[in-house]
Amino acid sequence: MNLKIALAQTPFLVGNIAANSQTIIESARYAKQQLNADLIVFPELTVIGYPAEDLLLRTDFIAQANNAIYAIAEQVPDIAIVIGYPEQAGDKLYNSAVVLHHGAVVSSYRKQALPNYGVFDEQRYFVVGEHCCLFELNGAVLGLTICEDVWQAGIIAQNKQAGADILLTLNASPFHAGKIYQREQIVCEQAKAAQIPVVYVNQVGGQDELVFDGASFVANQNGEVVFRAKEFVPQISVVDFIDAQPQPAERAPLYKQISSDYQALVLGIRDYVTKNGFQGAILGLSGGIDSALVLALAVDALGADKVEAVLMPSRYTQTMSNEDAQWQAQALGVKYHIIPIEPAVKAFTQMLAPVFVGTKNDTTEENIQARCRGVLLMAMSNKQGKILLTTGNKSEMSVGYATLYGDMAGGFAPIKDVSKLLVYKLAQYRNSLVPVIPERVITRPPSAELAPDQIDEDSLPPYDQLDAILERYIEYDQTAQEIIAAGFSPAHVERAISLVDRNEYKRRQSPPGIKITPRSFGRDRRYPITSGYRGINR
Amino acid sequence: MNLKIALAQTPFLVGNIAANSQTIIESARYAKQQLNADLIVFPELTVIGYPAEDLLLRTDFIAQANNAIYAIAEQVPDIAIVIGYPEQAGDKLYNSAVVLHHGAVVSSYRKQALPNYGVFDEQRYFVVGEHCCLFELNGAVLGLTICEDVWQAGIIAQNKQAGADILLTLNASPFHAGKIYQREQIVCEQAKAAQIPVVYVNQVGGQDELVFDGASFVANQNGEVVFRAKEFVPQISVVDFIDAQPQPAERAPLYKQISSDYQALVLGIRDYVTKNGFQGAILGLSGGIDSALVLALAVDALGADKVEAVLMPSRYTQTMSNEDAQWQAQALGVKYHIIPIEPAVKAFTQMLAPVFVGTKNDTTEENIQARCRGVLLMAMSNKQGKILLTTGNKSEMSVGYATLYGDMAGGFAPIKDVSKLLVYKLAQYRNSLVPVIPERVITRPPSAELAPDQIDEDSLPPYDQLDAILERYIEYDQTAQEIIAAGFSPAHVERAISLVDRNEYKRRQSPPGIKITPRSFGRDRRYPITSGYRGINR
Repeated sequence: MNLKIALAQTPFLVGNIAANSQTIIESARYAKQQLNADLIVFPELTVIGYPAEDLLLRTDFIAQANNAIYAIAEQVPDIAIVIGYPEQAGDKLYNSAVVLHHGAVVSSYRKQALPNYGVFDEQRYFVVGEHCCLFELNGAVLGLTICEDVWQAGIIAQNKQAGADILLTLNASPFHAGKIYQREQIVCEQAKAAQIPVVYVNQVGGQDELVFDGASFVANQNGEVVFRAKEFVPQISVVDFIDAQPQPAERAPLYKQISSDYQALVLGIRDYVTKNGFQGAILGLSGGIDSALVLALAVDALGADKVEAVLMPSRYTQTMSNEDAQWQAQALGVKYHIIPIEPAVKAFTQMLAPVFVGTKNDTTEENIQARCRGVLLMAMSNKQGKILLTTGNKSEMSVGYATLYGDMAGGFAPIKDVSKLLVYKLAQYRNSLVPVIPERVITRPPSAELAPDQIDEDSLPPYDQLDAILERYIEYDQTAQEIIAAGFSPAHVERAISLVDRNEYKRRQSPPGIKITPRSFGRDRRYPITSGYRGINR
Repeated sequence: MNLKIALAQTPFLVGNIAANSQTIIESARYAKQQLNADLIVFPELTVIGYPAEDLLLRTDFIAQANNAIYAIAEQVPDIAIVIGYPEQAGDKLYNSAVVLHHGAVVSSYRKQALPNYGVFDEQRYFVVGEHCCLFELNGAVLGLTICEDVWQAGIIAQNKQAGADILLTLNASPFHAGKIYQREQIVCEQAKAAQIPVVYVNQVGGQDELVFDGASFVANQNGEVVFRAKEFVPQISVVDFIDAQPQPAERAPLYKQISSDYQALVLGIRDYVTKNGFQGAILGLSGGIDSALVLALAVDALGADKVEAVLMPSRYTQTMSNEDAQWQAQALGVKYHIIPIEPAVKAFTQMLAPVFVGTKNDTTEENIQARCRGVLLMAMSNKQGKILLTTGNKSEMSVGYATLYGDMAGGFAPIKDVSKLLVYKLAQYRNSLVPVIPERVITRPPSAELAPDQIDEDSLPPYDQLDAILERYIEYDQTAQEIIAAGFSPAHVERAISLVDRNEYKRRQSPPGIKITPRSFGRDRRYPITSGYRGINR
C-alpha cells in the first residue's frame, strides 16, 4: 500500500496534441527517473489542453487525440500515467481520464459532472459518464474523478464506498479571486467526510481569457492540506503515500489576494503574448493609472526589452500627464515614443467640417481623438509584430466609458476584469515591491483628457460608489432595488445600471482579457445586445 | 371535436416582458374577436423573447416573467392561450409552455429536449422536463411540445400514444438557408408516422445574429402541409379543425432560396437597427460589390431616407469605383458624401515617419487607409446617431482579409455570413427586381484598392475555389485531406485553411451579423484564439 504519486502541474497548449504529448512523456520520465514516482497524475483533458471549445467538434482532432494516448503509453511503460482526453466511443464523446501502464490502457473514467455555466460549455460537447472507476497500484485502490465531479457532493464519497483508498482528481480550474480557498475548502471537507485522501492536480497557464493557477494539493483523510504546489508556476512534485496515507510534504504558502491577482494578470499576459507568437507588446501610455498599471504588468510579464510605450498627447493632455508617463517609462526601462495627435485630429476635423457644419461639439470629437491614437498604436503594432495591449478596466467596460476602435483597440485587454479601485490597489501593491508608478498618478483624479478640464466623475458616479454598484449588479445579479436598499444613492444606481444595460454592444467588440472575478465579460457573461430588459426604470 | 386554432406568428422583444405581454393580449383578443378562434398558440418563450441568454440568470427577470402569465390570463379569459415562459419551480428553471383559460393556468408543459449546440445554450439555463402534457378543449385532446422536442424522434409519437388528437408546438427556430424545408420534412414525417396533426408556430423577426423566419404551418396526419403562414412577416391566422382534422387553408408559397436569403438579411437589418433605436444607417460605399449589396439591403430594410452613403476615395481608388458608387447612391435615392482620405493618411504618415524610418511599406500602410475610413464613418455615425453598417462578407471574415477598426468597424455586419459568391448572386437577384447595382461592379475583379493595381486574387485563391473550401472547412468540419481529395488544389486548401486558423482574433472583435448558413461566426462557431491546432501542416 506504499506509493509515490507525482502531481504534474504543467502547462498545456490548447489544440497542440503533439506538443502536449511530448510534455506528458517528458514529465512522466522525469517523475520516474528523478522522483522515483510510481504514478503521475496530469490535469483535465491533458492531451488537447483546456478549453478546446469547438475544436472538439472536429473529427480529425478527436481522432488524433484518441491515437495520442496509445503513443504515450508505449513511450513510457514503466510508470503509471493518468491523463485526460476526449474519448470517442461510438458517436458519443466523453471527457475522460485514462490510466496508462506497461504500454497499455489499464483503466478509464468518464466525467460525471459536466459544468455548463459561467465560462464552461461542457454539455455542448460531452455525454455524461455514469460510473466511478477504480484501479489498483501497489496494493492500493485508487479512484478517479475530473474537476467538476469534486464540486458536487457525493462523487468523492461514492468512490470511497466503492472501495477506493485514495482519490485522484484531474482539473482545469480557472483562477478568480479567492477561488483557491473555495477549492481547498470543498475538497478538504469532502475528504474528511468520506475519510479518503485526495490528490488534486490543476493546470497552470493562461489560455485566452482564463488563467489556470496551479496550486495543486493533496488533502489527507482528515481534510488537512499536507502538500501544496506553488501558484502560477509549473511544478512536478511527488508525495509519498504510506499505507495509502499521504505523508506531509512541502506546502507552498498561498499568496495574499492582491498578490495573487497581480500574478494572475502577469501570467495571463505572458501566455497570451508568447503562445500567440508576438514579438513583444506596445501600449499607449497616458499618464493615467490604467496604462501605468498595464505597463508595469507587461514589463513583469515580458521583460522591459519586449515592451514599448507610446505617449500621444493632445491639446487636452496636461503637462503632468506627459511628465509622469515619461518618468514611468524610464523607471521601467522601456523604449518610448512621443507622437502628438494634433495633426491627425486636425486633418479629420477639416475633412469632416463640410459634413458637420452647423452641429455642436459632443462625444464625436472626443472619440476622434481616441481613434487617432488607436490608428497610431495599431500601425506600430502591425509594423513590428508587437501586440497592442488595451488599457481599459472593468469599470469602464461595464459602463461603456471607452471609445470603440479608440482606447478599446488592441489584441488583448489585461485589466478588462479589474475594477478601477482594484487598479489603484494593484498599482500600490506593485509600488510596494519597487516604486515604478509615480505617486501623483495614483492620487490625482482620473481623467480621459478628451475635453478641457474633464474628469471621470463629471460623467460617472465616484468610483467607490460605482464599483460597488457594478459588482452587485454584474457579478451578483442584484436588482436596483436591492442595491439601493443596501445604502447606495438611487441616482448613482440608476446611472450605473442604465449605462451597463446599454453598452453591451461595445463589450461585444472588445478584445479578450483576463478573468479575475467570479463573473467577467466575454465568454462568461452572455447578454443579448438587442434587449428590452432594463435593470432600472427611468 | 371541432376547434378553431389561431397561429400567432408575431415578433417578440427579448427582455421586454411588458411589451410582449401586450402583444400576447392584443393578439389573443384579435384571434377571439376577429377570427372567432377557440385557441391561440404563440412561439417559444413568448413572454421573454428568444434567446434571452444570461438575462435568464436574473431572479428579478424570471419573477417578472412568472407573474406576467397570470396577468395575461386575467386580461383575456375567453380564449385558450398557449404561451411559453421560463418557469421557476423551487430552485429549478424550466423552458415551459402554459395553457391559460378562464383567467387561470389550465395546464403546463416543460420542454424535454434542450438544445445545447450551435447557437443554443439551453442547458446553461434550464432543467429537462420529463413528461408530456395533454389538455382538453371542445372535446379534443391536445398535446404540447416545444421546438427541439419535435426534432427528436419519439416525442410526437409519445403524445399520440398518450391520447393526443392534435399536437401543438411552440418554436423559436432561427433561419438558415434551407432550414424551412428541413423543418417541414421532419415534422411532416413524424406527423404521418404517428398519425397526428401538428400545429407548428414559429417566431418572426431579427434578434442580434438570428433571424426567425416565421413560416408557421399545420401538417395533417398524413404528413401534408395544409396551411402555411408567410415567411419573414408577422401573421395571425386561424385553421379549422373538424373532428380534430385540420381543414385545408391558405398555404403561402415558399420563396426560392436566393429570395429567402435576401429577405432574411433585410429583416435582420431592419430589426437590429429599429429595435436598438438608431436614427438610420450609414455605410462606406467603395464601388465594390460588397458595399453595393449592403446599400441595397439597407435601403430595402429602412427606406432610402434613413440611409446615407460615404465615398472615401484614396490615391488607389479607381475612377470607375467612384463613378459606380455615385451612380448607385443616386439610383437608390440615398444621400451621399465624398470625403477623400488623403489628408488623414498624409497626417499619419508624417506622424509615424520618425518611428517608421528605415522600414518598408507593408500591410501597415494599407491598414492605415482602412482605419482612416473607419474613423470618418464612426464620427458620422456618432454625430447623427446612425448605425454604421460594416460591409465585409463571410469569405473575408474567414480568412481575415479585412482591417480591424478599419473596414471591420461598425455596429452591425449584415453580410458577415454571406460568402463572396453568394454576394454576387444576391446582387444579381436584387438587380433582377430593379437594377440598382451597376453591371460593372458585378463583372470587374474584386479589389480592396489599398495598393496600386491590387486585386483580391493576388492574396487569396479565386473565390470559386476559396468559398467551396471554406464551406467544407468551416461549416462541415472537413479536413484538409478530405477537401484535397474532393479535387481542390492543395496550395489553395493550404492557403485558405491556414488563414482561417490564424484569424480567429479578428473575428472575435467583429460586429455581430446575420446568420444565414448552418454555421456562422459569432455565438455559433466558438473557437479558441490561442490554439495550436492547425488544420493543415505547413
